[in-house]
Amino acid sequence: MMTIAELKRLVDQYLAKHLAADCDQATLYSSMRYSLMAGGKRLRPTLTLAVAHALGQELDENVQRAACAVELLHTYSLIHDDLPAMDNDDLRRFLPTNHRRFGAGMATLAGDGLLTLAFQWVSENDLPVEVRLKLVQLLSEAAGPAGMVAGQAMDIHYEGTQLPLAQLKKLHAKKTGALLKYSVLAGGVIAQASEQTCQLLGQFGAHYGLAFQIYDDLMDVIGSEAKMGKAVHKDADEQKNTYPSLVGVEGTKKALDQALSAARDDQQQLIASGVGDFKLLDDFLAYFQY
Amino acid sequence: MMTIAELKRLVDQYLAKHLAADCDQATLYSSMRYSLMAGGKRLRPTLTLAVAHALGQELDENVQRAACAVELLHTYSLIHDDLPAMDNDDLRRFLPTNHRRFGAGMATLAGDGLLTLAFQWVSENDLPVEVRLKLVQLLSEAAGPAGMVAGQAMDIHYEGTQLPLAQLKKLHAKKTGALLKYSVLAGGVIAQASEQTCQLLGQFGAHYGLAFQIYDDLMDVIGSEAKMGKAVHKDADEQKNTYPSLVGVEGTKKALDQALSAARDDQQQLIASGVGDFKLLDDFLAYFQY
Repeated sequence: MMTIAELKRLVDQYLAKHLAADCDQATLYSSMRYSLMAGGKRLRPTLTLAVAHALGQELDENVQRAACAVELLHTYSLIHDDLPAMDNDDLRRFLPTNHRRFGAGMATLAGDGLLTLAFQWVSENDLPVEVRLKLVQLLSEAAGPAGMVAGQAMDIHYEGTQLPLAQLKKLHAKKTGALLKYSVLAGGVIAQASEQTCQLLGQFGAHYGLAFQIYDDLMDVIGSEAKMGKAVHKDADEQKNTYPSLVGVEGTKKALDQALSAARDDQQQLIASGVGDFKLLDDFLAYFQY
Repeated sequence: MMTIAELKRLVDQYLAKHLAADCDQATLYSSMRYSLMAGGKRLRPTLTLAVAHALGQELDENVQRAACAVELLHTYSLIHDDLPAMDNDDLRRFLPTNHRRFGAGMATLAGDGLLTLAFQWVSENDLPVEVRLKLVQLLSEAAGPAGMVAGQAMDIHYEGTQLPLAQLKKLHAKKTGALLKYSVLAGGVIAQASEQTCQLLGQFGAHYGLAFQIYDDLMDVIGSEAKMGKAVHKDADEQKNTYPSLVGVEGTKKALDQALSAARDDQQQLIASGVGDFKLLDDFLAYFQY
């Protein structure tokens, strides 16, 4: 079996090598590349590759292309989220944010370009037609106005208004959860897993996505700028709805443990089903150290 | 045969009825709907329906959905183009621009939502799997960082620098032409026309798209705000590259006539091929009055 580090390297290499071919304006390309290659954990495409790998799928360039699309999409969401009109952030992954480097107009276009290119990459490869179409459908639902974009809009709309926990869960499920769930599920779709397996993968992805956003909330409170590579303590300043603001730091740690425990149960079911080597998911679950 | 006005009505009705189902945040939905339902000619989806209709395709709700996706995408491009970070326009279709009404943050998200939803609409309908996948591919290429977004980036990048005519043609082909060409071609793809017919449709679409942008340039000089529903004389103020700035008003009219004449030749070839009733395209060509 390949390790997570090896899978991540496939992602880094694919992105570095193939972005240029689909861009046709030098500044736009520089701006897209700047944010795409600024590093980062590559969590989403690595999850996709890991799940496909666990299911025995060969990870050729077609699979890599389909898997890396979600990183294009994730990067667009960070660029737009950082814009002066949105969170107005200056620092991302230890570097000036895209608009600080290229201006807000070009940053807007870089985001638009990455978002659109994501659909090109999932649709233009040699995977079976049904697989590619399914990925387009799932990705557009996860990222669109009933998914991630709705989560962003809720985030803005409810700034300064304290949400009940159920609503906060919904916000998190859309803002961050939907794309992480997609990333897990996409591995199953690419490997043409059964409906039952995809169901379990979706469940794991949803719990994992919730854990991820709770952890992100927590780190904004107890993490440091030096460790995170971006401003911290911003949520409270902007009166964002977060787990710590609603249930305190200890309550947040408890909620994180619960979400992780649910994800581990899903993983156990996946392992028990015998269709793939889902021990590989251990490393993703070990990420949440506090 | 249906008239262009009847086809446009199908588009207006479909958009009015079906946007809500795919949005899940009230302000976001209002913002997306505000720009989508602000009127407009519905030129792009009407072209798609007209070509499909000319080829004998039944225009049921699945076809309407696939065709209307390009209007979602076009509307996103207008919203982002109007943003303070881009053209900073206050007026669009006789109404305050989206960010003047909802703020730049929500306008950015409304654009992101419409762009993503376009891919949902072309992929989630009952057309054959191959047709849907082809539409995703063509739309992402036309709208992405080698198409429309590249054109926008060129437009910003070359402000204040006079381009040679060949470069200006390339800019126009990307900025406006690519999506209009897509709109024509999509009708052929939906009706599962032959490769030869699609080739001719693409050629017609490219010439038509060029004529459209030349006309737009011309109207910015000789049109009025009252007629256009948006600010005019902006191109010169912003030192944009346009036909009038490069070849003067008379030269622009001549270039427009040439592009239209080429489009008419393509139309004649389509008619002569006998595969559809392409007289229907007459009304689209009659649009360019000056």
